[in-house]
Amino acid sequence: MRRVAIVGAGITKFGVREASWKDLVQEAGKAVFDDIPNLDKKDIDSLFVGAAQPERWVFQTHVAPLVAELLGINVTRAIARTEVACASGQAAIRYAWLSIATGLSDVALVLGVEKMNTKFMNVSQSSMINVGNREFDGANGFTAPPFFALAAQRHMHDYGTTKEQLAMVRVKNAEYGSYNPYAQFQKKVTVEKVLESRMVAPPLTLFDCSAITDGAAALILASEEKARQLTDTPVWILGGVQHVDAAHTTNQMGDLSEWVALRKAAKDLYSMVGIEAKDIDIAEVHDCFTISEIIEYEELGFCRKGEGGKFIEEGESYIGGKVAVNPGGGLLSNGHPLGATGIRQAWEVVMQFRGEVPKERYVDGAEIAIAHNLSGMAQLHHLMAYSVNKPQDVKFGR
Amino acid sequence: MRRVAIVGAGITKFGVREASWKDLVQEAGKAVFDDIPNLDKKDIDSLFVGAAQPERWVFQTHVAPLVAELLGINVTRAIARTEVACASGQAAIRYAWLSIATGLSDVALVLGVEKMNTKFMNVSQSSMINVGNREFDGANGFTAPPFFALAAQRHMHDYGTTKEQLAMVRVKNAEYGSYNPYAQFQKKVTVEKVLESRMVAPPLTLFDCSAITDGAAALILASEEKARQLTDTPVWILGGVQHVDAAHTTNQMGDLSEWVALRKAAKDLYSMVGIEAKDIDIAEVHDCFTISEIIEYEELGFCRKGEGGKFIEEGESYIGGKVAVNPGGGLLSNGHPLGATGIRQAWEVVMQFRGEVPKERYVDGAEIAIAHNLSGMAQLHHLMAYSVNKPQDVKFGR
Repeated sequence: MRRVAIVGAGITKFGVREASWKDLVQEAGKAVFDDIPNLDKKDIDSLFVGAAQPERWVFQTHVAPLVAELLGINVTRAIARTEVACASGQAAIRYAWLSIATGLSDVALVLGVEKMNTKFMNVSQSSMINVGNREFDGANGFTAPPFFALAAQRHMHDYGTTKEQLAMVRVKNAEYGSYNPYAQFQKKVTVEKVLESRMVAPPLTLFDCSAITDGAAALILASEEKARQLTDTPVWILGGVQHVDAAHTTNQMGDLSEWVALRKAAKDLYSMVGIEAKDIDIAEVHDCFTISEIIEYEELGFCRKGEGGKFIEEGESYIGGKVAVNPGGGLLSNGHPLGATGIRQAWEVVMQFRGEVPKERYVDGAEIAIAHNLSGMAQLHHLMAYSVNKPQDVKFGR
Repeated sequence: MRRVAIVGAGITKFGVREASWKDLVQEAGKAVFDDIPNLDKKDIDSLFVGAAQPERWVFQTHVAPLVAELLGINVTRAIARTEVACASGQAAIRYAWLSIATGLSDVALVLGVEKMNTKFMNVSQSSMINVGNREFDGANGFTAPPFFALAAQRHMHDYGTTKEQLAMVRVKNAEYGSYNPYAQFQKKVTVEKVLESRMVAPPLTLFDCSAITDGAAALILASEEKARQLTDTPVWILGGVQHVDAAHTTNQMGDLSEWVALRKAAKDLYSMVGIEAKDIDIAEVHDCFTISEIIEYEELGFCRKGEGGKFIEEGESYIGGKVAVNPGGGLLSNGHPLGATGIRQAWEVVMQFRGEVPKERYVDGAEIAIAHNLSGMAQLHHLMAYSVNKPQDVKFGR
């Protein structure tokens, strides 16, 4: 199987943007082409677009060929839009990775985009119900904030995790976001400020939640041969898996603070890559809510189960701690344009490995990174692993 | 690279169904599991769902994990929903194929589904505008029927193709559909009947058009090792490509009756598989309109450019002719539930290869089949090739 690398990365400013969906696509396209000026656009043979709900937010489907048209890409091998709600972007990276690994594709454009802020915000917001099992979760108002609030309540009950510890996740990610000019929120916050912000779903306040965001990000992926021609700093894909707890929000699910699918996915990924949790220098994780990041510390093996609160309190997820978690500010600072988030995480990894981020959020000497998305009510977990100096053959099989 | 085979296939009745989207998923799931009783559901490690616009038609996104939940699938390797409008199903097959070819997955469930007939048919129908470039094509009413009507007008002008020849495509596909108990329309028709049906977009009458349909279909794909354990009639995937004309409906496009992207895609596929057009026994092609099938004869190389009308008139696309085109009745008889169509085509190929279709539509001795989808305004063409007795290593690279 061929080795696959990310050779170019570009991003738009995330936030409440005046830009249309198409504007965002073109802005991210320009950014990625500017990032790799020696790439001949004609060499791109494939295109994968991560987008969650353009059908509802911008009344558009068949979005992959539309991106091809907007960016002038002449697809001759493979094209698709991928959707797994909040992890739609990472699914696009995975499809491109497999296409190049087999030899079907040589150079692929991967673009994630979501335009969520529209003139019809009641529709924009209520459409988030569609991510759950609509007739059950939706009809009962069991959307993301109440789900993650229950997970937090359970975690606090079982392990003594405190509201202050939840807030500390936002404090860390806000600090790193303050050095990220593309982030939706670039102001530092204090624990007090998080606790004082308005209640959304107890114990989660507004500042415990990520936002509804417009944004796009794009990558160029290439085979090893092409990658060596195109860049001196290829970022290698070492592996990737996805695990599902089929029915997280029904009675088939156990303890809401235990994300068993993530635990299994992490074990699977580390085995595929030949690493242990302690080998990871950078972890881009899906902090859609502060509690998410705390549970992810545990299930990814950075600390023991139940000790996620202590992990942030003791600074272990800061740069310089055991593992730098979300040094770009995470979803909490960047916002969460669903289809773009997975691509934004990969962009952050590329920029970190190249040293092209402000020094205040730079993870010096990092060689291994993982990116984690979750989707839905945390029942589906998506992992990828990347390295900068260590290309290796991927162990696809078990 | 590992060889990949289809080892199981199941389908629902297509048509205007009382069944909900979830009912269709479960019906197709039951059908595919019944088809391969010796498969242990626990061996399925991956799931790919083809679905075009569940967001608009059933207010549901994040559909892949929902299918996992409904069917009790425990994903431990890869999962995604794929969307490329009318070819969303084939994109799901492709993702599964690449996942298994690399070794990431061993056994994958692929399911295509669309619920298009709802209580709000004005919304259901107008949502088809979203398939085009909405602000341009949609705002000008340039949806599928007028586009394919223009292609037909141009073809008639350039090559002398007649309305009767268009109608003959429907006559053939209606005949085969009459022997397909899963098809939406199972009545034979005459050329006169087609010509007399109400005008939709000149020269296309109602019977020149495929319908708005509810339906689902599912496949089990497996590695060669697993396939040999599971079935005596594995259907091998020999190759697959997609080509795009980036901007079919803008001024970048030339003659509407020339589908250059399909011509190039066919050349690419035949080279990948090591065949010529004359080697193909069965062609499942995307007859969304009668004119589509005529142009496809030409661009797929079954006859010379401009001779598609003559090809149907001389019976060359009937079973026993040069190539059996749409022996299951095509989209014209089956209807076109967008996400399910690509899977339905593969189901037909599997049933043909196994000889599990009524003798009136059975292509005896067939060994090589292709499946063709188009999406949007025919600017994007999707091809796969299958064989029953001839497994071979896929030449992924050029």
